[in-house]
Amino acid sequence: MTRLRVAFLGPLASFSHQATAESFGKISADLLPHASFAEAFAALQQKAVDYAVIPCENSTNGSVVQTLDLLADRDDSYRDVTVCGEYYLTVHHCLLARKGAYPGGWAGYDGSITKLYTHPQAWGQCETFLSRYFKGVERQDVSSTSKGAEIVSKETDEKGGAIASRFAAEYHGVDILQENIEDRADNTTRFLILRNVLAERTAQLEFEQPNPPTLDDRPTLETTHKTLISFTIDHSSAGALANALIIFKSHGLNLTSINTRPSLKKPWQYIFFVECGRTPSDENKDAVHKALNDLRQVTETCKDLGTWKDQLSANNA
Amino acid sequence: MTRLRVAFLGPLASFSHQATAESFGKISADLLPHASFAEAFAALQQKAVDYAVIPCENSTNGSVVQTLDLLADRDDSYRDVTVCGEYYLTVHHCLLARKGAYPGGWAGYDGSITKLYTHPQAWGQCETFLSRYFKGVERQDVSSTSKGAEIVSKETDEKGGAIASRFAAEYHGVDILQENIEDRADNTTRFLILRNVLAERTAQLEFEQPNPPTLDDRPTLETTHKTLISFTIDHSSAGALANALIIFKSHGLNLTSINTRPSLKKPWQYIFFVECGRTPSDENKDAVHKALNDLRQVTETCKDLGTWKDQLSANNA
Repeated sequence: MTRLRVAFLGPLASFSHQATAESFGKISADLLPHASFAEAFAALQQKAVDYAVIPCENSTNGSVVQTLDLLADRDDSYRDVTVCGEYYLTVHHCLLARKGAYPGGWAGYDGSITKLYTHPQAWGQCETFLSRYFKGVERQDVSSTSKGAEIVSKETDEKGGAIASRFAAEYHGVDILQENIEDRADNTTRFLILRNVLAERTAQLEFEQPNPPTLDDRPTLETTHKTLISFTIDHSSAGALANALIIFKSHGLNLTSINTRPSLKKPWQYIFFVECGRTPSDENKDAVHKALNDLRQVTETCKDLGTWKDQLSANNA
Repeated sequence: MTRLRVAFLGPLASFSHQATAESFGKISADLLPHASFAEAFAALQQKAVDYAVIPCENSTNGSVVQTLDLLADRDDSYRDVTVCGEYYLTVHHCLLARKGAYPGGWAGYDGSITKLYTHPQAWGQCETFLSRYFKGVERQDVSSTSKGAEIVSKETDEKGGAIASRFAAEYHGVDILQENIEDRADNTTRFLILRNVLAERTAQLEFEQPNPPTLDDRPTLETTHKTLISFTIDHSSAGALANALIIFKSHGLNLTSINTRPSLKKPWQYIFFVECGRTPSDENKDAVHKALNDLRQVTETCKDLGTWKDQLSANNA
């Protein structure tokens, strides 16, 4: 069998790359950077890759709307793309410098860095550390945290520092002066692992997460599988949304998240994304199947976007 | 009585300014630009202004998460801010040039514009027009569409064009070469009109929208009032979200939208924003009050964010 091919959002050594490397850590696979989420979805639909690993939500910033819009699939371009797994990556930032620039490390750091590089979002995530040790130091926005590490790795005379992950530091061969400089220790991004529902190569491979999340953020609920369903309703019918949501409860499915995106058919009409969890008891084995059947009676459109092992539930600990 | 003061997101002649001018068109008021949504909220909380007009949702791009985060009010900074109205602004773009630069207008346009200015989002909204008439012409991003109009208004020798609203054209005194150059005629932004619940100056002034939306996007439903409620639930309790949502239906309230934002207390726990509509029948006059009482039994926190006249419902046409 040829090696598996897995798409992620580049550049190399991005957080998406790290999540992909960790979630496919035990499986022999080629990890392939793509320039956009849409290109990764298209590659999967065309079976140019076997899987794609795409961020869908961050615990601080909320949902990734570009991912929801691709899952909404308003043009029916990605009809065979389905969710088969999830991966939680806790976002840790490090202060990085060129290899050997500060032989004593952080303990011996002399305050001589004159310019810092990182992605605009990372400044805000490391505010406490930066205002304590780097007040007034010039900040240069770059297109990714990985890019900042790369710039610093190629410096000769400059005194630059980058804020990026340990993964990016190792990839670009730079020194870590200080680890975990982020304000929130629990800032976590959830990635969805996607496959093509028609691809035989991935049909038999049950996705197992090698590294469970390190933080103690598991609810006590014994949910072991999650399902993502999108639907649209007749907005002119009073109670239509409530009627759809009640169906989940009536089949013993616990609603774990709800998102909406504009339908783009008519203003103020939405595509709803509902994630529901299922406990592993015997009597509700067909709960998702039955709920989908009922949903089709009260919705305008309704799509099953996949079922996968819940990585936060107690039973998978 | 001194004139009313109304806060909006600047600069002058922004879409927020236009929405504010139109919604307060018949009322004598000072319209005051603010540098951020947070500053407008703070001014309202401190009663430095009487109202604030803040975008909450766009029919193409979806919810404005910054506004939801301010309404979430995790630090209890804006406890007295409440929603008292809404206004729908259909986004129309025009091609603008310096006054007198093209006396024949669009009919006599000679193709000599060499540089275009607008906000990054507007390029994508006018793609069809731009690719037809301005292929290859240099594009300069600016911080707002109004800023683009201002730059063009001050040109002397350059051949610049701006993409902005008719409102910005009139404000900056530039010529409109072509109107309605946007791809989607129905691209609409919904603004919330906010007041301080403790302010006596605004207590008696029922907010009336002078210009109803021009597009035929009204559902046939006879909803006449909408209420926004935020709540958090115990995520470890199965069915907690469904139980909260069922309460709206049981009191005859129609769910018109649902949004979520991270709670920032614990990852994967959310603040829910539910908007519900109420028909004007007599028997459910206290429906919102009763629903809130019931909600408080099944939620961890629950906040009434205001009730206002639904501007899309048939009864207000």
